[in-house]
Amino acid sequence: MVKRFIIAIDLGGTNLKCALLDESLKIKARSSFSTKSFDNKHKLIQGIIDSVDSFILNQKLKRSAILGVGIGVPGPVDTLRGIVHFLPNIPGWKEVKLKKILEQKTKLPVFIDNDAKLMTLAEHEAGAAKKYKNVLCLTLGTGVGGGLIINDLLYRGPDNAAGEAGHFPLNEKGPLCGCGARGCLEAYIGNHKIIKDARKLFGPEITLERVSALARRHNPKAVGFWVQVAKKLGLALSGMVNLLNLDLIVIGGGVSSAGGVLFENIRRTILLRAMRVQAKRVRVVKAKLGIDAGIVGAGYLVRERLSG
Amino acid sequence: MVKRFIIAIDLGGTNLKCALLDESLKIKARSSFSTKSFDNKHKLIQGIIDSVDSFILNQKLKRSAILGVGIGVPGPVDTLRGIVHFLPNIPGWKEVKLKKILEQKTKLPVFIDNDAKLMTLAEHEAGAAKKYKNVLCLTLGTGVGGGLIINDLLYRGPDNAAGEAGHFPLNEKGPLCGCGARGCLEAYIGNHKIIKDARKLFGPEITLERVSALARRHNPKAVGFWVQVAKKLGLALSGMVNLLNLDLIVIGGGVSSAGGVLFENIRRTILLRAMRVQAKRVRVVKAKLGIDAGIVGAGYLVRERLSG
Repeated sequence: MVKRFIIAIDLGGTNLKCALLDESLKIKARSSFSTKSFDNKHKLIQGIIDSVDSFILNQKLKRSAILGVGIGVPGPVDTLRGIVHFLPNIPGWKEVKLKKILEQKTKLPVFIDNDAKLMTLAEHEAGAAKKYKNVLCLTLGTGVGGGLIINDLLYRGPDNAAGEAGHFPLNEKGPLCGCGARGCLEAYIGNHKIIKDARKLFGPEITLERVSALARRHNPKAVGFWVQVAKKLGLALSGMVNLLNLDLIVIGGGVSSAGGVLFENIRRTILLRAMRVQAKRVRVVKAKLGIDAGIVGAGYLVRERLSG
Repeated sequence: MVKRFIIAIDLGGTNLKCALLDESLKIKARSSFSTKSFDNKHKLIQGIIDSVDSFILNQKLKRSAILGVGIGVPGPVDTLRGIVHFLPNIPGWKEVKLKKILEQKTKLPVFIDNDAKLMTLAEHEAGAAKKYKNVLCLTLGTGVGGGLIINDLLYRGPDNAAGEAGHFPLNEKGPLCGCGARGCLEAYIGNHKIIKDARKLFGPEITLERVSALARRHNPKAVGFWVQVAKKLGLALSGMVNLLNLDLIVIGGGVSSAGGVLFENIRRTILLRAMRVQAKRVRVVKAKLGIDAGIVGAGYLVRERLSG
């Protein structure tokens, strides 16, 4: 029997991660580049094409053995037409017909989606949200992204824009957010904001990884820092839990490695602020697939589109 | 052909409204009683039974001509088992097996649901939300209730508790809410709160209907009053619109009759505070079925359960 493969790509603000997956979505080969090493949009697109070609060449595959290419990007996407609307953290991308461009160059079927939606798909198919019907998945990083599973299906909304949990208003008169509004969750707990808070507490050399490590060793200042993050996040989640009566909240991204203190205080805040029935129902857990969630999700996207 | 009927009941904090519906859910007969005229839970349940019997007697129907009884109640419900968990505005109701009690007494199939969910079902089947796939329906009254249509279906969540838009947190340190949390939408725009605000502006005799009438005649104080309500509501809706990429928001209940000034300022706030794609997509309209939404929804509930 001829073996077939999927090429999965996770384009992030920091890295362009590529993988060759077999049909059961196991990772057979990887490559990774710093996103910043590509000067502009055209070079980045060429980088994606080169990555696809390298897998085919290095693994001595026929092009016909590749079922398709799945790509996750950090911004809003018209997933059916394969158009990237814009990328908040990668300049120069506006209404880019990425699917069309890549299909012409690679001669392969290409499918594109938002990275938080692919992470959600992956966690629901193969990670922490397996067997849960109604789930919110969050990624905490520079931005706060999200995706929703409703009645066991990824819920996209009419513009593929559902799941934007980062722009949940926490206060009428809060700090300005990158989206133009005020007091959004992301304006309180996005990496840009919390690294500033951390520097005030621990000096200019501190990293969030270091604050997480300190918290795991019960450093009181570090614990207090994550409690504040957890309270903001827990309050926003209370509103979402009241509205959606969720079974599960999955939290991934760099910040989720803060560990126990973060998760315990999110749960505590939900019990305090959400309605009784909804608060009792919802579980809050860490994402399971870690940094590979985007890759695995891109694999599921290809499988889903080719079978549907 | 034998004509068949449904009995629909809308139990509210103010009135117990009953109707006899034909199979196409047209209202053939009505009755209505003040909820307060029943001293306690037992008398209220007897009132429901008497209403059912009166329709059968007065319309000279055979009991077998009644397909079922549908009831909407103002509080959380286990709709599959027909248990009323509690009613925030009617004392004495706690874990009442209403379906079982009524089926024994009436010898008819009985189906029970939350009133805001039935209003949502009715507006989606026959009202303002017909042809829209992803919808939030709100009722503005003593409480702020809600229901969600996701991918053309009423979304209930695992505890039939989804749609609680009234308990969306607007501010971390807002006024105490009846649910125990702080700063909920309902604590800002529930009738108890806004009638107090209105009295401060217009004196102790004012009613909300009167403030609505004044606003329609462009009284500046009344217009300003509804602008404030619209801003609070619009901010909460911005968060929900970002999260759910809704096609439509339907607003019903007494307060919705404030009219243009309310709806225009809700739309304006959403355009200002929600993300561009989501804000452009969503329409905000008044409920169409008015005070009969609960009755019509109870009819759909019976139809849905008997056919499913």
